[in-house]
Formats: sequence, structure tokens, C-alpha cells
Amino acid sequence: MQKWLEELLDVLPEKQIMTEAADRFSYSFDASFGEHLPEAVVQVKTTEETVHVMKTANAYGVPVTPRGQSTSLSGGPLPVKGGIVLDMVQWPEKIEVTPDDLIAVVSPSVLTADINKTVEPYGLMYPPDPSSAHVCTIGGNLAENSGGPRGLKYGVTKDYVIGLEVVTPEGEVMKTGGRTIKNVTGFDLTKLIIGSEGTLGVITEAVVKLVPKPPAVQTLMAVFDDVETAGQAISQTLTSGILPSKMEFVDQACLQAVEQYKPIGLPVEAAAVLIIELDGHPEAISIETKEVERIMQELGATDSQIPDTPEEAAEIWQARKLVSPAIATIKPTKVAEDATVPRSQIGPMMGRLRTIKEKYDVDLVVFGHAGDGNLHPDVMCDTRDQEEMERVERAVAEIFEAAIDLGGTLSGEHGIGTMKSAFMEQELGATGVDMMKRIKEAWDPNNILNPGKIFPEQGQTRLVLRDE
Amino acid sequence: MQKWLEELLDVLPEKQIMTEAADRFSYSFDASFGEHLPEAVVQVKTTEETVHVMKTANAYGVPVTPRGQSTSLSGGPLPVKGGIVLDMVQWPEKIEVTPDDLIAVVSPSVLTADINKTVEPYGLMYPPDPSSAHVCTIGGNLAENSGGPRGLKYGVTKDYVIGLEVVTPEGEVMKTGGRTIKNVTGFDLTKLIIGSEGTLGVITEAVVKLVPKPPAVQTLMAVFDDVETAGQAISQTLTSGILPSKMEFVDQACLQAVEQYKPIGLPVEAAAVLIIELDGHPEAISIETKEVERIMQELGATDSQIPDTPEEAAEIWQARKLVSPAIATIKPTKVAEDATVPRSQIGPMMGRLRTIKEKYDVDLVVFGHAGDGNLHPDVMCDTRDQEEMERVERAVAEIFEAAIDLGGTLSGEHGIGTMKSAFMEQELGATGVDMMKRIKEAWDPNNILNPGKIFPEQGQTRLVLRDE
Repeated sequence: MQKWLEELLDVLPEKQIMTEAADRFSYSFDASFGEHLPEAVVQVKTTEETVHVMKTANAYGVPVTPRGQSTSLSGGPLPVKGGIVLDMVQWPEKIEVTPDDLIAVVSPSVLTADINKTVEPYGLMYPPDPSSAHVCTIGGNLAENSGGPRGLKYGVTKDYVIGLEVVTPEGEVMKTGGRTIKNVTGFDLTKLIIGSEGTLGVITEAVVKLVPKPPAVQTLMAVFDDVETAGQAISQTLTSGILPSKMEFVDQACLQAVEQYKPIGLPVEAAAVLIIELDGHPEAISIETKEVERIMQELGATDSQIPDTPEEAAEIWQARKLVSPAIATIKPTKVAEDATVPRSQIGPMMGRLRTIKEKYDVDLVVFGHAGDGNLHPDVMCDTRDQEEMERVERAVAEIFEAAIDLGGTLSGEHGIGTMKSAFMEQELGATGVDMMKRIKEAWDPNNILNPGKIFPEQGQTRLVLRDE
Repeated sequence: MQKWLEELLDVLPEKQIMTEAADRFSYSFDASFGEHLPEAVVQVKTTEETVHVMKTANAYGVPVTPRGQSTSLSGGPLPVKGGIVLDMVQWPEKIEVTPDDLIAVVSPSVLTADINKTVEPYGLMYPPDPSSAHVCTIGGNLAENSGGPRGLKYGVTKDYVIGLEVVTPEGEVMKTGGRTIKNVTGFDLTKLIIGSEGTLGVITEAVVKLVPKPPAVQTLMAVFDDVETAGQAISQTLTSGILPSKMEFVDQACLQAVEQYKPIGLPVEAAAVLIIELDGHPEAISIETKEVERIMQELGATDSQIPDTPEEAAEIWQARKLVSPAIATIKPTKVAEDATVPRSQIGPMMGRLRTIKEKYDVDLVVFGHAGDGNLHPDVMCDTRDQEEMERVERAVAEIFEAAIDLGGTLSGEHGIGTMKSAFMEQELGATGVDMMKRIKEAWDPNNILNPGKIFPEQGQTRLVLRDE
């Protein structure tokens, strides 16, 4: 047995350390690409255990890759350098609400949706709502700075975290921020660590900010026969003084896939639909909903629907919620992207995506959080078809180029992980990447915490396919 | 002439470099304490000039302290190690609004209030509203992560910046973030640099996020005969599902000072007043205002006022806005603190402050952004009275201890600067301070950018008074 494994067993119960091939295989993949076998899976349940793992790993130079429920679409939890997968899911679940402070203290293993279930009786809400909220952990959300449809009005994970407990790569316990809404004491390490994809520290506790739950919500769907008009309708709404909580876009290919998957009477002839949700005071949103409908119609929406009941609203939202399962039936593999552009560039980006789709003859569908410019161009493909994958590879590269070209970014909410690191310098420049690397090196001198992520490896150029 | 000055003159026009004693004296202080003469004042107007200054200073090991309008209350712009004061105020003012993207690109020299004046015609708003907005620069706000009354609903400066152009301590130009609302490409250097008090880079441009300007605002004032009840009223309001844009607290000492400064009919017999502003849709806030008034009355407010006109509302706000000028008449020197506690601890913090006031017999007044726990306990004093200053020193130390003790922080919005560095480790722990220092050292190996700030000097223990 390896010396570091023996030392782990000095402190951790034997059943929390797994080295059998079958166990290791279970922890070798996530929701993105590739399989990477770890040498061991270590389940931690306390800060003290985490400290021991990190101190030992650091002493022996063993890579550690923290992992939640592994719904990551960019490879964050993949142990690409082997070593230890640090499974955070067995950590006891804790959601401690302090309603008067509008905060909750949560443990990393908590499912994101459970935070909302717990705070709702207090009339409160935790706004970030990644689509995977019912199956993903808050720990993963913190590592990746997860977004979601409500990001338009409410922002993303980072905007709701005011304090962290973190175990550093060298095994020291650090508290960042605290329980106050405002805090400018020193550098903002909280927001540096959130979204660092598990490369700067292992998050063992978080203080999240809550907001009063809006007393009412109202849905509206508008149908468009061209995509550019839908883009204009988004801008027009947002500059009218109304800030919807969600503005989701679904293109024709997605509408058709959903309708085929489950016939719910969607307008499959339309170029796109916008599904909008407003929240707030009932009287205010009733006025605002009519105003948004007026804007949609004035700009040329061919149809619009305002549901009368929550059940009717839920039916409309199916058009968006069923996209992922529906498109999964097109082909077995989904390359889920999240290239994001400034809002005004949604129209031009849609044009670029159409060109890319035709040029490389790929199954490209587009949906997503159009209100904040965060589209999801997904390429459906089959990894067994090498020729197709080469086309997908080039199409994805061109999607990134288009996003950067239009003033946008590689990733709005999925993260860089292993998938997009080759494109980092194109967006950030050499100095930007260098300054990030300096932080990583200063905090993790032995490069043991989630190595092989974010920063491109020497000579790395491939995205979907691996460099040989 | 020093070699580094000669090299600066190679690129910068002579009139942008000042070495006369009178000029240097003008740049030796800010709105906090102490005077520190720089060796030269260098006015930069372009990124290229800034690069040249930083490269030269880095090569010769000359300290550089960036400076905006120097309204800082914590010493950020003080050139405590001499060297160069980098005056950013002569930079050409730029506010480029892109309404469709809900963003503006601004130069560091722009006055914060001017951003709002420029975006208002588009129906937009830049929410952060430090009380000094009409005289401070956005550059200073970015360096300090300035807050303001609207922080309660809208957050602080950091929450509205999505991209930066920064010159690093070694003189490289770096772009962070960009023009998209969502961005998870690599570490969040934007939010690391904002609030780093000019120690990690010189900000030469920022992309700020705008929001639709709420169509209406409504003010309400409630009067209390004890402070704890006022604290309860705040919590009760925030857990009722209503999020006011501002909830300001003014204590009796402030009310009396204001009334003496300018008689406007304030309830000087009251223990405290809360001044609340709601914003949003007119019909919604009219309902919400009545609900807030009901909460106040139910909890025992002795009086409440809802003004009918903007003029009447402005009169009520005088009770808050005149606090600073009014208390300045009590004694010549104001030690302006911003210790912040979790909202539920406002009552207990008020009790601690009363005890401290009596124990050290100091002129302590309390006002501030109580809705987010960000109080301003200000001690009025006279620096010529050494015995009094010793008492002030001990009182301020105890204010910090009380804030940390109650789960709060040294600084909610003013920053650490030179004023609070001695207390950093007490709040952050040794590991927290160490991890911050590692970033500083990795980015600024020669420690030339705003040295002597945030991190305590060896043996530093004093707050208001300097260590001998």
C-alpha cells in the first residue's frame, strides 16, 4: 500500500477510502467527456478529515480532485492527473437558516434545491437556479459559480455567497468573508475561490445570502418567425424599465425536438419562442406583463400567451425544461456549450451559429438564457463517428471564436475545466492567464489541487477531442 | 534629478510631473489621518503613460500610490512610503453607454454621480451611491469597493463591475472580465482587484452594469423611543417580503446635532429614527409603504411620516444628509468608522456602542445603513488633545472588537488602508492574512504598488494614533 494511503488511514475510517477498481471507475467521469481513473476515492465528512487529506496529499505530491454530484459539463471533477478523488457528498447535510440576518449556513453536500425548500417557510429565497438544482450540490455550484435562468434578474452563485470556510491546498483552514452583507476587510477571497473550479481550495462551508421571496410570478410566451426579432424584443424589454426574472430562448430545432419527444402543442413552425417570467408584487407584475406583451407584439411577435394558472404556466415552461432530454434523443452525445455574448449581440451570434451549423453540417441546437446573453449552443453527436467528431471539434472552436469576436466569453456558467482551457489565452491574453497562474502557484506550490484544469497544458489545442 | 524621474520625463510631458514642495504637500493627505509627502506627483492621462510609470517605478523600486479625489476615510491614497502619487484625476473623462447591453464603459477620473446623470436619459441607473458620489471618482470607488445607502437592495460597487482594464504592478496591461453579465472564464480577477485598495493594479477602465431605473420612489420616516425596537423593525420589515432600497438609522446625538446645525423640526427627543426608501412600480410601492408603516407602528414606533411630494421627502432626507456636516461642528476631527454586523446584531451592537461611549467618555454618534448592518459609529475629537486621543484610540479598538465579537467585520465600506490594518489578523486569522499576502507578493514582487496598506507593518498596533 502506498505510504500516503497508509497515512490517510491513520485518521480516516477505512470505509471512507476506496481503492477497488469498480469504485474508482464510478468516480472516473462526469457529465462532460473522458474517463480518468483515480488511484483512490476518499470520502470526507468533516473539516478535520479534509485537512488531513490535504496535508497528506501535499506532503506526498498526490493530486486531489474535489467532487460533488459531478453534473459538471466542463470536466471540473475529472481526476485527469489520477491521485485522489475527494468525494464531498457524504458530508452531513446542514442548512442553518438565520431569517433575521437573511442568511443560511450550508455544508457542501447539500442539494441546491434543498436550500430553497428549507428557506421558503421563512418567506425567503436562494435565487441561483441551475437547471440541475435538484441533483447537484451547492459545493459544486460554489466551485463552478453556477448560473441559471434567474441570473437575469438575480445574478449567479457568487452574488449570494458572503462567507466561506476553505481548506487550502496545503491543508490550512481559512475563513473568508463572514455573516455580514457588506465586508471590505482585505482582498475578496470569497469571490476569488468561487468559480475557481476547485483549484484554489476545498470549500467546507458557505454562508449564503437570501432574499425575500417575491409574492407572485407570471409567465408569458412570445412566438417569433425570425430570430433577430426575438433578440430585439429582449433588448426592448430590458430598456423599458422592466427586469423580468427569466427570459429564455428556444430555437426551432429545440421546439421540434421537444414536440417529437412529448407532443405538447408547441409552435414548431416558429423560428423561436421567448419564455419570460416576471416576479414581484402581484399588481406590479400584472401591469408589467401586459407591457411586455405589448412590446413583443409591437416588434412583430406572431403570437403570445399569458397563462391564467400556475398549471398553464408549468405547461409553457415544459417547452424549455424538456429541451435537454429531448435533444438527447437526437444523438447519444451532447457537447453542451455556454458561450456568452453582450445582450445586443444575441442577433449577430444567432447568425454566426447558423453559419457554423451549415458549414460543418453538425446537429446544432440553440436555447438558453437569452436575457443575459448566455446561450446554450449544443452540438449533438456520436463519439463513435470519428469523422463527425472532427467536424464537431472545428464547429465548437468556431463557436468560441465567434463569441470572443462579438465581445463575449468562452463560458457564461459551465466553467473552463478541461473543455475550454486551450482557448483561455485567446480571451484573456497572456498577462491575464499569467496573473491567474501566479495566484495558483502562490496558493498551491505543489500543484496538487485539481491539477490539469483551467490552464492549458503545454501544446494543448483540442477541445472535444483529446490531444494525442 | 533622480534617474527614475528622468526616465518618466522621456515619455510623460513635463507638466504632468510635479516635484515642488507645495504640489507634493497638496497630495500628502486624504479624508482620514496623517500627512505623508510623496517625492513626486505624476498625472497620467492614458494607459500607455500608466504602463511607463509602473515599469519605471518597478525597475527602480519606487513606491506608487494611485489617487482619485482622495475622499477616502481609511488612508488608501496616502503615500505612506513616499515615492510617486499617481494622480488619476486628469485622465480624460469617458462614459460610453451601450443601452442595449445595459452597460457603460467609464474612465477612472469620472465622478460617480456623473455616471448616473449620463445613463438616466436611457431609463437606466448605476445603483452604487456613496455619500460622496458628487465629489469622488469611480476609480476610487473601484479601488475601495464603495457602498452607500442603496447597498441594502442593490449591493455595492463590486456588484456592478463586469470588466476592467488594469495596469499590473510590473506595468503589463491586463483585461479582466468583459462586456457580458455572466462570465466564468478563469479566476474572477475583476472582483479580486475591486476593493484591493490600489495594491494589486492600477485600474484604467471599467465596464459597469446598469439596471432599469425604478419608475418611482417613496420615503417613510419612523420615530422610536428606544434603539432596540428600531433594530427589530428593520428585521421585521426585511422578513416580511419587502426589500426597501434604503433603510437608514440616525441616533439621538445625530438628530440633536443636525437640529442645532439647521433647525428643521426633527424629533430631538426620540432615541432614533429610521428613514426608509422604497423603489419600484408606483402601485407596488404604495402598497408596500403602507405595509412597512403598519410594521413600524405595530412594533411601537411613536410616530411615522409618509411624505406626499418629492420636496417633502427631500426634507426628511435632510435628517440623514446633514449628519456629517452637523457632527463636524461638535469637534474638529471625525474618526469615521464603518464596523458592520449581521443585521440581527444591530440591537446588541447599539448596546455595545453605548457602553463604549460611556466607558471612554467620548463623543460617539451613530448613524448609517442599518438595513444591511453597516453602522457608522463616528467619534468626534480633537487631535490636539493627546489625552482625549488616547481614549479615542481605546474606544475605536473596542468598537472593532465588538463588531468581530458579534460576527461582524472591521469595515463594511470604507476599507482597511492604514487605519485598521492592525486588526486584520483578529478578523481573518493568520491563514487568511497569509493567503492575501501571497497574492500581493506574486503580483507585486517588489512591493511598489501602494505599499504600507491593508497588511499590518511589523509591530503595528495603533489605530487612530501612529505607532512611534
